[in-house]
Amino acid sequence: MNKQILTGKEIVVSVGNLKIGGNNPPIFIAGPCSVESREQILETALALKKIGVHILRGGVFKPRTSPYDFQGLEIEGLKYLKEAGNQAEIPIITELMDEKNLDIVLEYADIIQIGSRNMYNYSLLKTLGNIDKPILLKRGMSATVREWMMAAEYIAAYGNTNIILCERGIRTFETYTRNTLDLSVVPIMKNETGLPVIVDPSHGTGIRELIKPMSKAALACGADGLMIEVHPNPEKALSDGHQSLTIEQYKELFEEIN
Amino acid sequence: MNKQILTGKEIVVSVGNLKIGGNNPPIFIAGPCSVESREQILETALALKKIGVHILRGGVFKPRTSPYDFQGLEIEGLKYLKEAGNQAEIPIITELMDEKNLDIVLEYADIIQIGSRNMYNYSLLKTLGNIDKPILLKRGMSATVREWMMAAEYIAAYGNTNIILCERGIRTFETYTRNTLDLSVVPIMKNETGLPVIVDPSHGTGIRELIKPMSKAALACGADGLMIEVHPNPEKALSDGHQSLTIEQYKELFEEIN
Amino acid sequence: MNKQILTGKEIVVSVGNLKIGGNNPPIFIAGPCSVESREQILETALALKKIGVHILRGGVFKPRTSPYDFQGLEIEGLKYLKEAGNQAEIPIITELMDEKNLDIVLEYADIIQIGSRNMYNYSLLKTLGNIDKPILLKRGMSATVREWMMAAEYIAAYGNTNIILCERGIRTFETYTRNTLDLSVVPIMKNETGLPVIVDPSHGTGIRELIKPMSKAALACGADGLMIEVHPNPEKALSDGHQSLTIEQYKELFEEIN
Amino acid sequence: MNKQILTGKEIVVSVGNLKIGGNNPPIFIAGPCSVESREQILETALALKKIGVHILRGGVFKPRTSPYDFQGLEIEGLKYLKEAGNQAEIPIITELMDEKNLDIVLEYADIIQIGSRNMYNYSLLKTLGNIDKPILLKRGMSATVREWMMAAEYIAAYGNTNIILCERGIRTFETYTRNTLDLSVVPIMKNETGLPVIVDPSHGTGIRELIKPMSKAALACGADGLMIEVHPNPEKALSDGHQSLTIEQYKELFEEIN
Repeated sequence: MNKQILTGKEIVVSVGNLKIGGNNPPIFIAGPCSVESREQILETALALKKIGVHILRGGVFKPRTSPYDFQGLEIEGLKYLKEAGNQAEIPIITELMDEKNLDIVLEYADIIQIGSRNMYNYSLLKTLGNIDKPILLKRGMSATVREWMMAAEYIAAYGNTNIILCERGIRTFETYTRNTLDLSVVPIMKNETGLPVIVDPSHGTGIRELIKPMSKAALACGADGLMIEVHPNPEKALSDGHQSLTIEQYKELFEEIN
Repeated sequence: MNKQILTGKEIVVSVGNLKIGGNNPPIFIAGPCSVESREQILETALALKKIGVHILRGGVFKPRTSPYDFQGLEIEGLKYLKEAGNQAEIPIITELMDEKNLDIVLEYADIIQIGSRNMYNYSLLKTLGNIDKPILLKRGMSATVREWMMAAEYIAAYGNTNIILCERGIRTFETYTRNTLDLSVVPIMKNETGLPVIVDPSHGTGIRELIKPMSKAALACGADGLMIEVHPNPEKALSDGHQSLTIEQYKELFEEIN
Repeated sequence: MNKQILTGKEIVVSVGNLKIGGNNPPIFIAGPCSVESREQILETALALKKIGVHILRGGVFKPRTSPYDFQGLEIEGLKYLKEAGNQAEIPIITELMDEKNLDIVLEYADIIQIGSRNMYNYSLLKTLGNIDKPILLKRGMSATVREWMMAAEYIAAYGNTNIILCERGIRTFETYTRNTLDLSVVPIMKNETGLPVIVDPSHGTGIRELIKPMSKAALACGADGLMIEVHPNPEKALSDGHQSLTIEQYKELFEEIN
Repeated sequence: MNKQILTGKEIVVSVGNLKIGGNNPPIFIAGPCSVESREQILETALALKKIGVHILRGGVFKPRTSPYDFQGLEIEGLKYLKEAGNQAEIPIITELMDEKNLDIVLEYADIIQIGSRNMYNYSLLKTLGNIDKPILLKRGMSATVREWMMAAEYIAAYGNTNIILCERGIRTFETYTRNTLDLSVVPIMKNETGLPVIVDPSHGTGIRELIKPMSKAALACGADGLMIEVHPNPEKALSDGHQSLTIEQYKELFEEIN
């Protein structure tokens, strides 16, 4: 177990019939920051499916800065998300925060997301190396390119190379945007690891108006997909409302790009 | 569970007869980055005890950037560390990386360290709220003051206020030092949370020659203790040798400060 | 003199017949980091003109970190640059470092560049407000969006609104790239100031292979132009050779983009 | 002019009878951010002299982020500052922003301050190499240790080694403090350059309550002095009031430290 596995040789990740990476067309992942109710996620799923979205996202275990903030609907939310994915006939992705919930998330989700806060959680990464579900590995909020590569290598070293990388902005001195979206990692990480790289302009900027231009930029430099927060009613969202697009706004973005 | 618990009221943490924080004299934690062998940790423990060190540190589960680097002696190392602490008659501290090893670490260690990479691991923090051992919570490598406060609050909110905070440097543009030691958080965090705050100048600078001046600075602005890497033979250390003091160098620092 | 002038109303900057900003097609600025000899700049100018470049760049006063590094050919270099621009029939841009050389630079250059190191040089900015030549104002290496806006406002407040902004990467913890190219400022600065915004992917990444993908990304999110370092023989360049494209590489990039 | 001059050999800077650096006791520089009126600076100077301050500071040319903010009393203010220094019988320091005002500042000031925004202004630094007044060179807001060393080297290379370095905090992701005070540069810069290094905890933290603990920390790690903002009435200050101490607060700090 001493030879680096991710060395730049192209890896295409399959989710059902969907192919991510390589020369495949970019994939579109969308959905609310949090699953808030059965109605909310069902409505969103059906609307997004109609627009052409490939994968439905929705958080059910939420890593919140304050222990007193909404922590997600947890397993109940996961069931709603699954039901929504089933009705809309699209695969679902959700974040896993710990090993405790691995089995249930494995049972329901098609892709397991590891969030920025857990990119350095090597125990969890090793565990994910032992399963064969695709993993979406977000960059840590101040992770260097090498640290991110090595985090992916932890998963690969233990046996799972079905990894999708996701740039979501880094922490810098700038306060105008929520994070500084670092698009240079798209060509860098694709070249260094061979893995597909997608971009999350919602967290990457934190500003609704910037999502469209940064989505175009991401695809222009080679991103294999986009993950964007969409909420049927951002003003009432329990988290990240200010950076969520309405379904209508997302539709416009989707059509302009495609 | 909605009212902030850590509001600045002074909290003194007890480890056996040792009191940390408040008006108590600063505590000295020292030992190698990694427990490497029974001999190494025994030799170090006895020498440090003789110098006057209060708590022995030693890593047995190591969060390493690369999966191919030395990952620690794990449970075997923990037993060596415990034996060394027993022989030297000083309490021990070691890092816990995941819930899987919580029971065994609880059994052996006197203080449980949560490293920078796990400061945002809210699932683990919640679990630590349910035990009553003291927790040493390192600042995340780019954690803001508020995020660090809230990480401690996760532990407190679930019932455990025996928390020691540890500044270990933050990530900035500067490359001369390994990290930028941010001493302003000593008065800030003491005031905001009431918890004891100690400083780790070894990781905070990454440069052996800077450990003494920065230790003095840390105490001058109110730090409740220092955690310093000491190795009987830094040149042969399996990790962090370049920033470790020899026992002789540590003795000189200890005497100059006390 | 108390009302903000740059408020988002679109400003198109003219350089001879060239229009920059608004709905005009993107402009291409290229040339060596430093003017090194008459032959070098003439050869480059003629080759770039043939490819379709709009403006020739070349540094003659060089702000170097070390006082012992090559400081540029100064006025002699400026004359070579002018001659090259004349022969190739394209306007020229060069950096001004101080007021002392303002008159001579004004006489020769078509656009005056203010580099990152002088973005906060408010005395110089005020002086540039009193002339009517176009100014290319690079973002400071750790300038916030607001500071950059206000630096442009210094020029505008004293009477000159012929300003082109240039993103060239910011300083972050990342060391893989020379700087972190922050493309989100393209839509932000265009919207906040109304000024044209161009991108310099050469300094923004410091890596030859990243220039093409980041150029495409810059244009995709609305950049009004690109400034790229090109050298007939990068291996022998006196400065920034590793991030310079050969003329052949630039031609390929230019054709692929246009 | 090709051999590095500042190589770590100790340099003591003289200002009248005052010696700065080496084994000399720390010097105390204090005064308002801006000279606002004859009365304000006279009152401050006399009060500070009585406390024991060695050097009076006061800004008359102010580098403000916005062109519409108070830009200083300029030459009128310089005359007030000089008069105050004369009456209190202490030397004065003020910031120079450009060559235009060099002669008048040279005539009045005992030390010339180069602010953070001009640390990379190499033209100005070269000019200061040709005079023999002491220069206080602040670190740029995101200047690396090497860049700061080389900025000092610019002055030294042109003939003036009467340089005092001043750490004033760097720009990081943290927003709780105005800047992150990087005290590790005190031993680093003293060792690398041999020059005296002082610390400005007022800009370094931006928070009145942190000035005392960080002053103590600065001296504990070897700083050769402190520069602190003091205003007779911070609430009415035209700039930086929130980080200024009252004369009474400064007196308390001065006595506690001495």
